[in-house]
Amino acid sequence: MAKARPKNSIQDEPSSPWRKAGERTREREIKREAVLRTAAQLFNEKGFHAVSLDEVAERLNVTKPTLYYYVKNKDEILAECVRSGLELMQEAIARSDEAGGTAIDKLIAAMRKYAEIVTMDFGKCLIRVGEDPLPPESRRAVRRLKAEIDREFRHLIELGIAEGSLRAVDPKLAAFTLAGALSWIGRWYRADGELGPDQIAEQCIGVLMGGLALPPKATVARAPRATAAKRVAKKAAK
Amino acid sequence: MAKARPKNSIQDEPSSPWRKAGERTREREIKREAVLRTAAQLFNEKGFHAVSLDEVAERLNVTKPTLYYYVKNKDEILAECVRSGLELMQEAIARSDEAGGTAIDKLIAAMRKYAEIVTMDFGKCLIRVGEDPLPPESRRAVRRLKAEIDREFRHLIELGIAEGSLRAVDPKLAAFTLAGALSWIGRWYRADGELGPDQIAEQCIGVLMGGLALPPKATVARAPRATAAKRVAKKAAK
Repeated sequence: MAKARPKNSIQDEPSSPWRKAGERTREREIKREAVLRTAAQLFNEKGFHAVSLDEVAERLNVTKPTLYYYVKNKDEILAECVRSGLELMQEAIARSDEAGGTAIDKLIAAMRKYAEIVTMDFGKCLIRVGEDPLPPESRRAVRRLKAEIDREFRHLIELGIAEGSLRAVDPKLAAFTLAGALSWIGRWYRADGELGPDQIAEQCIGVLMGGLALPPKATVARAPRATAAKRVAKKAAK
Repeated sequence: MAKARPKNSIQDEPSSPWRKAGERTREREIKREAVLRTAAQLFNEKGFHAVSLDEVAERLNVTKPTLYYYVKNKDEILAECVRSGLELMQEAIARSDEAGGTAIDKLIAAMRKYAEIVTMDFGKCLIRVGEDPLPPESRRAVRRLKAEIDREFRHLIELGIAEGSLRAVDPKLAAFTLAGALSWIGRWYRADGELGPDQIAEQCIGVLMGGLALPPKATVARAPRATAAKRVAKKAAK
């Protein structure tokens, strides 16, 4: 067996102007991430079609040919940004699930993370730009990932209904309602706004979980308040 | 005073291969509307940037030069489509308001119409494409209209809180939550899907008004179910 190197051996080695292979790979990853993130920020600010790779390069203080060392083209950048946003969501939902607790706890934890992610560069890009500008194959791949996240939410809602913590709603429609309300945050959120992402998430989740209407007349669809009020008024008039 | 013409005078007049000015104006309006609607359908199917005016012309069985008699360019078409969607919403909210009743009645009526409009050509175009591809000035005009609709929802929520039919939520965040959930319908709705627009609207409004959580543990943000459950479990273990 080779003798273990002393801890500070790296400083003792003759210095080389070239970095080690591992370092280079890591540095390449960091730079690629910076390209994607900067592009996502520009897409979110100006819209996908209005952004040129020259602008991305300019913001990173490099030339356009340098970008091509990290990414193939604008479509690939968008596909990667959107995929990163979706992966963040999937990880968050998986972690909410692993954290244990009741279905309603898991659902609320997943919603909190979802709301947070749509205020971040890749999540915002997923909501504001999305997969529509992508070529058909990447678009389909993104839609598959989206459908998986949707299924996760639906599953948590089904579990919540089964455990008796959620109302007997249509899980599919309820999942769409949650996703819509939470995704919308990514469309209007501004980092310089009054409320932080956490506060926004709490308010939005509060409405979705608790409803807008005051109980006990909460089931408006079946027994609208006004009808009840009119019935009371009619009785009183007799 | 000129003598009133007999009712069927139009048939007695010598026929002309040219139509009357009023008829021509009306026909022009109908044709312009068809151009906008067909373009909106194509934008919704394929995305704004992927659609050419040639395709719009082809679907209408006319040539591209014919289109230019009705619209200036693709940007103008989108601006008009989005504006039409927003005008439909404004009219719907105004009608809900005029119909009278309590604030919660008006709010629910406005939400129903909003949900219906986002499943229609111009409403869907407003949600799926939106103002982002437009030049700055049109974009600002559209955002002003959007802000007005948002204010209407906020106002109805404030009235609902004041009349005691709605919970004391943050009206701004609640309005965004409603708009998000309802707008999202325009993103996933398919005319060939299982549920019709009415059923979707009822389910979505049911979640928004009644909440997902079963009462009385509805105020999840302040007293999460799990915490309460844990407290009970701790007490029981003593």
